[in-house]
Amino acid sequence: MIIQLETGISAERKEKVLSELESRKLKLVDVKTQLNHYLVALGKTDFDLRQIGHLKGIRDIHVVSDTYQLVSKKWKTSSSQIDLGDGIKIGDGNLALMAGPCSIEDEEKTDIIAKFLASQGVSIMRGGVFKPRSSPYSFRGTGIEGLKMFHRICRKYGIRIISEVMQVSQIAEMYDYIDVFQVGARNTQNFNLLDELGKVDKPVLIKRGISGTVDELLQSAEYVFSGGNEKLILCERGIRTYETSSRNTLDLNSVPILKEKSHLPVVVDPSHGIGIRDFVEPMALAAVAAGADGILFEIHQEPEKAASDGAQTLNFEEAMQLVKRTRSLFDLRSSW
Amino acid sequence: MIIQLETGISAERKEKVLSELESRKLKLVDVKTQLNHYLVALGKTDFDLRQIGHLKGIRDIHVVSDTYQLVSKKWKTSSSQIDLGDGIKIGDGNLALMAGPCSIEDEEKTDIIAKFLASQGVSIMRGGVFKPRSSPYSFRGTGIEGLKMFHRICRKYGIRIISEVMQVSQIAEMYDYIDVFQVGARNTQNFNLLDELGKVDKPVLIKRGISGTVDELLQSAEYVFSGGNEKLILCERGIRTYETSSRNTLDLNSVPILKEKSHLPVVVDPSHGIGIRDFVEPMALAAVAAGADGILFEIHQEPEKAASDGAQTLNFEEAMQLVKRTRSLFDLRSSW
Amino acid sequence: MIIQLETGISAERKEKVLSELESRKLKLVDVKTQLNHYLVALGKTDFDLRQIGHLKGIRDIHVVSDTYQLVSKKWKTSSSQIDLGDGIKIGDGNLALMAGPCSIEDEEKTDIIAKFLASQGVSIMRGGVFKPRSSPYSFRGTGIEGLKMFHRICRKYGIRIISEVMQVSQIAEMYDYIDVFQVGARNTQNFNLLDELGKVDKPVLIKRGISGTVDELLQSAEYVFSGGNEKLILCERGIRTYETSSRNTLDLNSVPILKEKSHLPVVVDPSHGIGIRDFVEPMALAAVAAGADGILFEIHQEPEKAASDGAQTLNFEEAMQLVKRTRSLFDLRSSW
Amino acid sequence: MIIQLETGISAERKEKVLSELESRKLKLVDVKTQLNHYLVALGKTDFDLRQIGHLKGIRDIHVVSDTYQLVSKKWKTSSSQIDLGDGIKIGDGNLALMAGPCSIEDEEKTDIIAKFLASQGVSIMRGGVFKPRSSPYSFRGTGIEGLKMFHRICRKYGIRIISEVMQVSQIAEMYDYIDVFQVGARNTQNFNLLDELGKVDKPVLIKRGISGTVDELLQSAEYVFSGGNEKLILCERGIRTYETSSRNTLDLNSVPILKEKSHLPVVVDPSHGIGIRDFVEPMALAAVAAGADGILFEIHQEPEKAASDGAQTLNFEEAMQLVKRTRSLFDLRSSW
Repeated sequence: MIIQLETGISAERKEKVLSELESRKLKLVDVKTQLNHYLVALGKTDFDLRQIGHLKGIRDIHVVSDTYQLVSKKWKTSSSQIDLGDGIKIGDGNLALMAGPCSIEDEEKTDIIAKFLASQGVSIMRGGVFKPRSSPYSFRGTGIEGLKMFHRICRKYGIRIISEVMQVSQIAEMYDYIDVFQVGARNTQNFNLLDELGKVDKPVLIKRGISGTVDELLQSAEYVFSGGNEKLILCERGIRTYETSSRNTLDLNSVPILKEKSHLPVVVDPSHGIGIRDFVEPMALAAVAAGADGILFEIHQEPEKAASDGAQTLNFEEAMQLVKRTRSLFDLRSSW
Repeated sequence: MIIQLETGISAERKEKVLSELESRKLKLVDVKTQLNHYLVALGKTDFDLRQIGHLKGIRDIHVVSDTYQLVSKKWKTSSSQIDLGDGIKIGDGNLALMAGPCSIEDEEKTDIIAKFLASQGVSIMRGGVFKPRSSPYSFRGTGIEGLKMFHRICRKYGIRIISEVMQVSQIAEMYDYIDVFQVGARNTQNFNLLDELGKVDKPVLIKRGISGTVDELLQSAEYVFSGGNEKLILCERGIRTYETSSRNTLDLNSVPILKEKSHLPVVVDPSHGIGIRDFVEPMALAAVAAGADGILFEIHQEPEKAASDGAQTLNFEEAMQLVKRTRSLFDLRSSW
Repeated sequence: MIIQLETGISAERKEKVLSELESRKLKLVDVKTQLNHYLVALGKTDFDLRQIGHLKGIRDIHVVSDTYQLVSKKWKTSSSQIDLGDGIKIGDGNLALMAGPCSIEDEEKTDIIAKFLASQGVSIMRGGVFKPRSSPYSFRGTGIEGLKMFHRICRKYGIRIISEVMQVSQIAEMYDYIDVFQVGARNTQNFNLLDELGKVDKPVLIKRGISGTVDELLQSAEYVFSGGNEKLILCERGIRTYETSSRNTLDLNSVPILKEKSHLPVVVDPSHGIGIRDFVEPMALAAVAAGADGILFEIHQEPEKAASDGAQTLNFEEAMQLVKRTRSLFDLRSSW
Repeated sequence: MIIQLETGISAERKEKVLSELESRKLKLVDVKTQLNHYLVALGKTDFDLRQIGHLKGIRDIHVVSDTYQLVSKKWKTSSSQIDLGDGIKIGDGNLALMAGPCSIEDEEKTDIIAKFLASQGVSIMRGGVFKPRSSPYSFRGTGIEGLKMFHRICRKYGIRIISEVMQVSQIAEMYDYIDVFQVGARNTQNFNLLDELGKVDKPVLIKRGISGTVDELLQSAEYVFSGGNEKLILCERGIRTYETSSRNTLDLNSVPILKEKSHLPVVVDPSHGIGIRDFVEPMALAAVAAGADGILFEIHQEPEKAASDGAQTLNFEEAMQLVKRTRSLFDLRSSW
């Protein structure tokens, strides 16, 4: 059960609400986010809601029976939106395109990509500086210095940055140089990291786990939300199955399902989702047709020479076509 | 290796080709389809092709190294098309819409659906009369009598029929009352059935297995083709994974992958692919965006009362919207 | 609900039972097997059982709520046993070892294997003559002539035969030359085949589907049982997962689970289950430790030269060790 | 390629080795563990090894072509063993039994369990104090204070402790109160955590990921080993598949496969592997039969009242039987 409190509720009134709820043996979680103040009440809610609904200081009460509460659409039926400023928005009627190299490399290369994206009106750039790698001997990214350079370049072009955070200690380090924290597929259930991201006032994009369920993704988002950060984006990126003709099995079923279960924006990463450069565009189009709020994909001026993931990375020409087509498909969808 | 022979090649010339190939220890499969005459030569093909290419009676030679040969796009780079007459075509630039109830029920209900489809310009109707069911105690379909009635009604409206064949003995029984044989997901690797369908001159739609790979689907199609029937359609219908929020995991990655590997048309069944009525439309749209040549979906005048699969079946209003939107998306895609 | 009728119940008494049940809107399936006479009553069974229990001609009544009925342990709590004569038994306190080549090859080779098995006291020989192959161009077995030869040799050594049946028309063909019909993993849900095997008085071993669930396996067994044949054996042979270091993922969890859900014997095929020769023995041992009633495995005098599946086939020396060790482990288990 | 250096190699000699290797464009990773000093040389190793083998200070050179090096059995063919003192050993001829509650609860309950384990000669106790939970609202463990109490009790009974570490900051906190760090299935690819555990001189048990491959588990172990800690234990605990009759699919195939690929001890967790109390014992026995070096399982004096995982937790009586039987099966196996 979610009890939305009035902003600036007095200590006295809040006390009264709390004691009323506790008297019903509900476990309470007090959640203050950037935007609102909620009480999540866990336990049996089979009493007459009016008994507490009349209390002063309560804005609204919603009974939610899912394993996730605050991210559920059952209490917040309108779509949430992330506003990154300068008209750059994710969710609720916008098509957010986020593109960039798998790994941030040197300054010159990064500048060329940022400039290209700006020329296409793509206003969010992705790029990893901390890279999770199965093998300890693989390239692990350029680190925080790479991020600072990346940030400098993006500011020049008015572009926002999304980049992966792998552990708690990187949050503070990255904070000043980033617009959206990305939680990778191997960290979807890194609960300590999610707890800490709940305390931060920057949007967080959470990728679905390598073999994560839709419900687990929503519960991971609930971690961040209940920690105090409601600026959240969900990302489908393919799951692990027995099929070997593609890198992952992009589960586009999850798009309409997530959008019905949750009010959060849902974006899709077709690059990891199929892992084959020639098919990134059709899968991006399919994602938009299925209802996605955005596309996260990999580009590089010379995919063959990219530091990682070259086989699924588009060159500029391919990217231009993807951008143009996903937009015209999004326009068609919006007209319905 | 595929050797395409000239139509009406003389016995003498053919004998010469055969002996030439056999002298190279190649295993030969002689394939006469409705349209062509091929020799599939299996074994080491590391000799100079010109040594046999000059022989009379040979139209063309193609080296194909996949586990499937005749269905491969490596030798036939143009898209194949199934022509059902009266301008009803599947593949190569057409969007084939195939709809109908999961199970054929009574005459009145069937007539209403057929009439509705005709009114929407949907010219292929699906409907099962032999139903594969996990439990022996479930409804197993109305059988051949149901098919005869189904056929009568479809002829009235100029609509073509696709229906599932479950075993060899049903092929002859169904032959006169059907336009396309459907091989269900549980029979994708029923090799005896595939062998027999290779001897028939009616198109065959093969669904991907419950947990079949893309390559297995192509090899199953190869069974039918090498048996002599090249009128084939491939169908993605979702695979079995750990995810339980949808009935199956619709693997739309398979659409561009199958279309690159094979010259055969690829259609998608979003009804089984997601199994949730409200989301059949977005997944149908996603399939078209990904490049599908057609959509196979379930409709019923009263989905709640359908004999089977009601939870994933559209009513007429929902179907009209799906038809309209998939067509307008297909038009957009065709304009690129 | 299962109503076990008395053997030789009079027509009059049976009529009375039927009308009593039908008056309660139950759907009835009349099942006469080799051993018993049952009525499976489907529908709501929430009435007082004593109302029908007093009727003459009824031996016993059991309410079973699973999707399978006759194969359930809920009504038959003792373990079923297959008796192949001469003291050769499967289930209920016996360790059944079944071994042989993947495919039956020539007479000489078959004789050598049969002789070896006899020398080890292994009294059931496996060997395929109809081979399901993903590719139409692969070796498909020696067919019915191979089976006749196989049968001749086994009779000489007093060995029983288990071999795979792929389609309905093969049942009659194989009947005289076989002791146990094997339904392969690709045919677990070939319902027409299961229906026909229900009419036959020979034991049937059903392998779990390529990605079949435990419940689907039981429902497939229910097909055969409700068709009239209760001589059934279930076989775990590994399922398809994302893991590629083994051919399949042998799911030994299924052994105790199947044995709790069903009264039927459960055997394990470690050869297909792991697909790696060196590890067939440890997995056979694991299967016995988990409670399996038998082991089905592949052997050949020269695995490297076997017509199929050589990579998972044991030679005689390896087989001798497996036989000895599984038996001594089975003895240990039996002592508990 | 692994170059094992002599202990106490002089700086001068080492310099010579390094420059020789670098001249061949090999990337070098210098690994000093508790026991040895290695150089892992990555890159093309297609030169004559004798060219470097003659250098002073080199003990041995091994070419390993897997994606993992130091954990591979290709260079270290003998089995590794973890010695926890007082004759408590894991691997290489020992059967390590590790048992305890899912979550550490209060002092009294913990004491009863520890005492019971001591009475059975089980000398390693498991118990979580930091619990990874899908939902932010679930019980997350008693934390570091719980661990201190747990430690006090175990010392009293001469029992060793294994407990899960979830994040880098907990390593130092837990260090003094723990004998073996456990990395849970959700952290198998938490690379920062693995990096830090490489710097610690305490054994680390790494569970296979929720849907991790055998190779990924080995690469995760390689992280810790190459970080400087070679006291490693691998743990199979079931993978995620489509099957729902068990909590996970225990993949016992991984036991012989891991033991062939790596010199590290392999233990199995049947409690999570099947998730059904009644079947923990048969799966433990199967694991030992398959070659496992130990069993990690959950017990509680009152499983029905356990703070978590009650459905898969054994009571003392069940545990006694499991202990007795796994030991007698291990003895049988050891006699072969």
